[in-house]
Amino acid sequence: MDQPSPIAFYFDPISPYGYLASTQIETLAARHGRQVDWRPVLLSVTVLQVMGLKPVPATPLKADYSRQDKHRMARLLGVPICELRHPDVSPIRALRAFLWLKRHDSAQAARFARAICARLWAKGEDISTAEAVLEEAALLGVDTAALGQGMESPGIKAALKEEVDHAVAQGVFGVPFFIVDGQPLWGVDRLWMLEHWLEHGSWDPAP
Amino acid sequence: MDQPSPIAFYFDPISPYGYLASTQIETLAARHGRQVDWRPVLLSVTVLQVMGLKPVPATPLKADYSRQDKHRMARLLGVPICELRHPDVSPIRALRAFLWLKRHDSAQAARFARAICARLWAKGEDISTAEAVLEEAALLGVDTAALGQGMESPGIKAALKEEVDHAVAQGVFGVPFFIVDGQPLWGVDRLWMLEHWLEHGSWDPAP
Repeated sequence: MDQPSPIAFYFDPISPYGYLASTQIETLAARHGRQVDWRPVLLSVTVLQVMGLKPVPATPLKADYSRQDKHRMARLLGVPICELRHPDVSPIRALRAFLWLKRHDSAQAARFARAICARLWAKGEDISTAEAVLEEAALLGVDTAALGQGMESPGIKAALKEEVDHAVAQGVFGVPFFIVDGQPLWGVDRLWMLEHWLEHGSWDPAP
Repeated sequence: MDQPSPIAFYFDPISPYGYLASTQIETLAARHGRQVDWRPVLLSVTVLQVMGLKPVPATPLKADYSRQDKHRMARLLGVPICELRHPDVSPIRALRAFLWLKRHDSAQAARFARAICARLWAKGEDISTAEAVLEEAALLGVDTAALGQGMESPGIKAALKEEVDHAVAQGVFGVPFFIVDGQPLWGVDRLWMLEHWLEHGSWDPAP
């Protein structure tokens, strides 16, 4: 039998909901014999440039909702979360590092992705600087000299741009965003739908 | 023992997700011994004026997602849904009629709310005109002469404005929106969270 297709999991470390999903997706996929294909996206491109909207923290009403909501979602999922302590955080370097790692070892890259999301949202530490990115990579046993050089290369910079363009072409607009068997799903609050699809392969109600 | 507080259920017939939730909320509430307090809101105020965003159908990427997504959500919930055939639809008259009915018979008003949402999203018929509103009311046995006059009264027009202001003050920004025991929840994809709260009264994972 053919290997079932992986779950494309689009993340941007800047999103608390992306972090929350990053703590769940591997276990959920494994329960259904699926792999996870971790894919970077930039909300600064999809939300601001493509959709022409404001970031959630600058959107009246939704900002307050989301600030509270992430805590109860974290509690439901049994993971820690903290407030964003670095409002000017940029995920660019971390995502370039992720892409460089993915070229060499995709499992290592997935671990790095989870670590970077957790650095911002569980530890409350900045992820913007090269030092921060390399510190997390070092904890995973990565060759940080090679990574430090690789993540600043023109090829990797171009690759991130291509990845984001590709995500937009797939209709990815928010984070977390899942695509499995051609089905797009947005939001950590839809993990139940992802699970439903993986279990039943249709949108008919559970028998 | 005190009666448990009702679930405030904010709806705007213009939202397909609001329609979908309108087909579920009474059964869900009844399972947990709760009443539903149906409350009108206007996305044209919350989304456009207060949040300064675009309507979903005018938002790149999200428009396509939502157009497809409502069909699979309807299938999961076991209810019919169709495309919006009246892009210039206005919910104002229907919501004024709802408020007038609510002053006289809140159960009748709830039935009317469900009927108006279904008229637009299951039958595919317009709900903007006085004729459409009165036709749905007549099917429920409402005194349409009294309703026709009542829904155009200055008092009811002011009441709708007050209701929307109140919703915004409560932090309501999208539809469907639920508030129960002080907990705000947005989205038909969060019915599972509403059910979790009603069952456990906390955000701890289910034991």
